[in-house]
Amino acid sequence: MRVKLNGKTEEFKAVWFENCIIKLIDQRALPKKFKIFNCRNFKDVAFAIKNMVVRGAPSIGCSVVYGIAQAFLQNENIEKASKILKNTRFTAHDLFYGIEYMKKAIENKEDIVKSAEDYVNKIINECKKIGFYGNRLIKNNAKILTHCNAGALATVDIGTALSPLRVAKENRKEFFVFVDETRPRLQGAKLTSWELMNEEIEHCIITDSSAGYLMKKGEIDLVLVGADRICRNGDFANKIGTYSLAVLSKENKIPFYVCAPSSTFDFNLKNGKEIKIEERDEKEVLFVGKERISPKKAKARNLAFDITDAEYVSGYITEKGILGKEEINLLKNL
Amino acid sequence: MRVKLNGKTEEFKAVWFENCIIKLIDQRALPKKFKIFNCRNFKDVAFAIKNMVVRGAPSIGCSVVYGIAQAFLQNENIEKASKILKNTRFTAHDLFYGIEYMKKAIENKEDIVKSAEDYVNKIINECKKIGFYGNRLIKNNAKILTHCNAGALATVDIGTALSPLRVAKENRKEFFVFVDETRPRLQGAKLTSWELMNEEIEHCIITDSSAGYLMKKGEIDLVLVGADRICRNGDFANKIGTYSLAVLSKENKIPFYVCAPSSTFDFNLKNGKEIKIEERDEKEVLFVGKERISPKKAKARNLAFDITDAEYVSGYITEKGILGKEEINLLKNL
Repeated sequence: MRVKLNGKTEEFKAVWFENCIIKLIDQRALPKKFKIFNCRNFKDVAFAIKNMVVRGAPSIGCSVVYGIAQAFLQNENIEKASKILKNTRFTAHDLFYGIEYMKKAIENKEDIVKSAEDYVNKIINECKKIGFYGNRLIKNNAKILTHCNAGALATVDIGTALSPLRVAKENRKEFFVFVDETRPRLQGAKLTSWELMNEEIEHCIITDSSAGYLMKKGEIDLVLVGADRICRNGDFANKIGTYSLAVLSKENKIPFYVCAPSSTFDFNLKNGKEIKIEERDEKEVLFVGKERISPKKAKARNLAFDITDAEYVSGYITEKGILGKEEINLLKNL
Repeated sequence: MRVKLNGKTEEFKAVWFENCIIKLIDQRALPKKFKIFNCRNFKDVAFAIKNMVVRGAPSIGCSVVYGIAQAFLQNENIEKASKILKNTRFTAHDLFYGIEYMKKAIENKEDIVKSAEDYVNKIINECKKIGFYGNRLIKNNAKILTHCNAGALATVDIGTALSPLRVAKENRKEFFVFVDETRPRLQGAKLTSWELMNEEIEHCIITDSSAGYLMKKGEIDLVLVGADRICRNGDFANKIGTYSLAVLSKENKIPFYVCAPSSTFDFNLKNGKEIKIEERDEKEVLFVGKERISPKKAKARNLAFDITDAEYVSGYITEKGILGKEEINLLKNL
């Protein structure tokens, strides 16, 4: 991804492996500071996932893939490392998918660093294809809504929901993006806006509760979101607020698309009822940064994700093309 | 309203008139600090409304009523004072309603302070009745969602949407309240939670985008919101996010009620298309308190209100009872 630093534009990935260290753009510090977080062992990786130094299902997947490679090179117990890495954030499918992939590579005595790099490059390549297919949905002068951050930061490079925007920009289309700020952690205001600034894509930030009314006013033509886990019937988990956007899109007859690579599809799950949803610390709601925005002793609920039924989804933009929900079962064998 | 201060419980109004000074609980400072803001002339009142020292349609109405009384006692030009007071926030109907009421009282040479007090007492009394009627909808163990602050702070005392909760609490019903934090100004997290803490009503704060998913999960039985302006067909303006809640309530078959006194009904307006919506400074979205939560040079849209069509409303809880939209026209002459 392009990053503007001190007047220069440089290329970065959100996650990379260098001298047996896993390097992460520290997503907690953006957009204020651009910092690199070094993971010197798999415990650092677990910390980074749990504390959202790195976030976004595909980026989490790539981080654990490198984490297992690193653990292997450091002669750590792989079962133990896997267990600790799995015990961080349980909603994103890519985390489990990535670990299983690496365990197989170890079993098959493959070149472990090459296996990890192959995995990451595959994700990046899939994101490119998501952009290629998704770009077809973006008409000139379109007004597009996105939620949370399903960009390069969430997917190592390029993005899922932001990938079609990058391709449309390359294709010199004119369009405008509404970025949901995405409380409580504000990934939209902090990360998506930062990515779009770097890409010089025209956009504005809105509060999450403005999206519905903008739809009603005819100011939104298309909704693109990412996903953390997609079931075989098309129900999917994504950042809290996604379900509301899906319902509002249906009510206002606005196309609503989910952008994700195959690694986010969990063919073991029949439907959304089988997805476990993480509830995070209430402090993320009660405070913004260090500022308390609530009375002392007030309580909060902090659901990190929600589940949206397949009935609300216009299509799934994957590296294999734009699928209807009835085609998801075919994806497995493509 | 009950206010717990230094271990004691005291009674306060959000707005009152004392020695020709309009006293306001400074709503910008809550819940951190409890401060009184003094308006020594109508320009102070205009400042207080514009900068949301006082907010909520009925409290704004009462503030301008006292503001006109004060201007009259201070021998100010009433036309000029009215113009400046009207030119503050234009969505709330009560502001215009209150000014017209006072101009008539001056024309009729009535006791001007008594007229103002009558207006304010009428509002408080109407809120009590809203609580009486609304309480009928609250079943034991109900889980109720509210948005923004339609409490005592917004209505001088008691509240509109919070009034049924106060009455249900008096009636020793068990119930739980979900409080939307209400970005960007966080009136839910800051003000509603503060009021409910003072009343010892069990509740928790949620991000605005969680409400829909909690509805889907069956965790919400009833939605109560206030209003800033209601048209004669039942379309109404309220805090941004209300429209989304209305759509989500319909989708999940949850009763959705609007709580407001007659002063909020604008019989001159045929439908919601005729309501003008205030857009406020983008800084309210780009910053939380003094903390910037967005990249430098990022832009934002900040719609302060939205409009919800009458079709989504289960009923209007007024001082005259719970009305269907087809009964609104009768309200005028009751």
